[in-house]
Amino acid sequence: MTTVATRFPAARYGTRLARAAELGAAAGLDALLITPGPDLRYLIGSRAESFERLTCLVIPTDGSPATVVVPRLELASLTGSAVADLALPVRDWVDGQDPYALVADLVPGASTVAVAEAMPALHLVPLADRFGATPVLATPVIRQLRMLKDPDEVDALRRAGAAIDRVHARMGEWLRAGRTEAEVAADIGAAILAEGHTEAAFVIVGSGPHGADPHHEVSDRVIEPGDIVVIDIGGPVEPGYNSDSTRTYSIGEPDPEIAGRIAVLEAAQQAAVDAVRPGVTAEAVDAAARDLLTAEGFGEVFVHRTGHGIGLSVHEEPYIVGGNTETLQPGMAFSIEPGIYFRGQWGARIEDIVVVTADGCEPMNLRPHGLTVLPA
Amino acid sequence: MTTVATRFPAARYGTRLARAAELGAAAGLDALLITPGPDLRYLIGSRAESFERLTCLVIPTDGSPATVVVPRLELASLTGSAVADLALPVRDWVDGQDPYALVADLVPGASTVAVAEAMPALHLVPLADRFGATPVLATPVIRQLRMLKDPDEVDALRRAGAAIDRVHARMGEWLRAGRTEAEVAADIGAAILAEGHTEAAFVIVGSGPHGADPHHEVSDRVIEPGDIVVIDIGGPVEPGYNSDSTRTYSIGEPDPEIAGRIAVLEAAQQAAVDAVRPGVTAEAVDAAARDLLTAEGFGEVFVHRTGHGIGLSVHEEPYIVGGNTETLQPGMAFSIEPGIYFRGQWGARIEDIVVVTADGCEPMNLRPHGLTVLPA
Repeated sequence: MTTVATRFPAARYGTRLARAAELGAAAGLDALLITPGPDLRYLIGSRAESFERLTCLVIPTDGSPATVVVPRLELASLTGSAVADLALPVRDWVDGQDPYALVADLVPGASTVAVAEAMPALHLVPLADRFGATPVLATPVIRQLRMLKDPDEVDALRRAGAAIDRVHARMGEWLRAGRTEAEVAADIGAAILAEGHTEAAFVIVGSGPHGADPHHEVSDRVIEPGDIVVIDIGGPVEPGYNSDSTRTYSIGEPDPEIAGRIAVLEAAQQAAVDAVRPGVTAEAVDAAARDLLTAEGFGEVFVHRTGHGIGLSVHEEPYIVGGNTETLQPGMAFSIEPGIYFRGQWGARIEDIVVVTADGCEPMNLRPHGLTVLPA
Repeated sequence: MTTVATRFPAARYGTRLARAAELGAAAGLDALLITPGPDLRYLIGSRAESFERLTCLVIPTDGSPATVVVPRLELASLTGSAVADLALPVRDWVDGQDPYALVADLVPGASTVAVAEAMPALHLVPLADRFGATPVLATPVIRQLRMLKDPDEVDALRRAGAAIDRVHARMGEWLRAGRTEAEVAADIGAAILAEGHTEAAFVIVGSGPHGADPHHEVSDRVIEPGDIVVIDIGGPVEPGYNSDSTRTYSIGEPDPEIAGRIAVLEAAQQAAVDAVRPGVTAEAVDAAARDLLTAEGFGEVFVHRTGHGIGLSVHEEPYIVGGNTETLQPGMAFSIEPGIYFRGQWGARIEDIVVVTADGCEPMNLRPHGLTVLPA
């Protein structure tokens, strides 16, 4: 296997930082304060984690350089990030110092600051105190950048999609009657890693009545002949972009009534994919799937939104949901995953990731969409 | 293996909720808002995770019942918690509803609310907006409860300590010259699980010069004869309480000068343990180790605090650090882990978890403390 870099070239992050500062200034913000999480990985390629000691990227919007505040003990967390290549100033601190004062000193006079949505209250509350006001969310600024994937990001999503497709292609190796959901999930998790993901972030095996709970994970239920099984799986590939794909399987030949309903679901998923193009709203894509299902009598059993954005986070902007009037643009990436759920009986969901192109969208997942029949 | 319950009996959580409400009222708070994380696990035994949709335990301090706000899609996350046994009201919500308004409606007229320190800005900022003020941290209230472990919690910490001791006892199976830190760490991680932990939360293998970085994790460095190796490992056992123990190993007979320095470190660790008893301050325990090391000329190379509280979190209150005048009480649990670090050469750290008793402390870790010599 070839080694894939854990981040993009440093210049990419320099551009992102400059754009974040510009957009922040345009939004009337004095500074962006970014603690560990996907925003930090997006902006400087750092996979630092958050603990009780403050790590924070401070981005002034007046053009002065961004600075990383980091505990001296955790300086190594910046290794591998773009901080050194970009020659970003680093202000380390030791136990006994007040890191919130350090942050405030880096943006003298700042009053309107925005924080990463992942920042825990542990840090947000003392920063609010230090700045004299509740910060706002940096999300409206950062989302404008993170929502629009560049070609390298799309390539990472394509690699992630191909990797999870390979796992679905092998489903017959593991999914059969007589095994528990948990046993099947363990095999799938190993295959997610073997096919190139760095983590098996989630594995849902919803068999029979469990398939009717969209957020069921796994259980010790033994899979039976005739079960309909929802398999929703994914995880990140380097440099951190996620896969997320759902297919629905039948253990042996399905009841024709069930197969017919799942064919309707397949048409609804396709209708939503067909609706995607620049200029369309996120809610219009949701409506494309929902209207078809409603017309066929399944509106009440499609109990969730049609999709969510994806990238460094499994769930991010844009959300494909009623009420979201965000206009789609080329480079946006999100799931299209309508489902139908019959409580106590069975459920089905079909999910692809798509990326908006100049005149439609490119699916990242290419496995057949209909009910896949496996030997009982 | 016997199955260990994933939570305590429901009545325990009922008592904790009542105490949290009382302490909140005494602190002048109108409500506590607790999102997923260790505080939520402490209060209702829930291992729910936090995603973009709000899950929040709302605890009014006026004696009215606590209520769980949860996305309908994630209702299953409450399974296994004490919510059903305690008959706590559950308010589920669906996409399109405003969950922050739901929270506010549960505590009409509330203005001073406190939030869990794990609450992400994503939820804290809209709640601040809804309540018209920045929330304060619930930590000063919750810490009074979480810091004082009851006998069942101490038993869980004792089981965790015994489990990690068994891993240290087997170190000679894996730690030897010619292997990389990462290879050794993989074996240790498997043993952490095999010995009864539910997760290998952290595995630090700091060999030779890497041992001089207290927060080094692992690398592809090949261990050499004569290396001094810091092994700092731990993870949770059910119902969620963590182990954390460090021992320092020598690959073959050590240099007498190094062995002498590590003997001083052992004395410093013992001095801090000997200082622990009710009524003593946290900073006095730190000073006990620090003064001895300083007197021996190692004050400058002991670059971190002496310890941290432990329980449902690996790091929690009380922190054993200069400036912390918290008075120790029976039931408090924390690490005592002085270390000495010689940049570019080697490092050593010795760490036990101790629980304060009526007249001293009980160590959770019983392995020999001095430098353990393994065959080269």
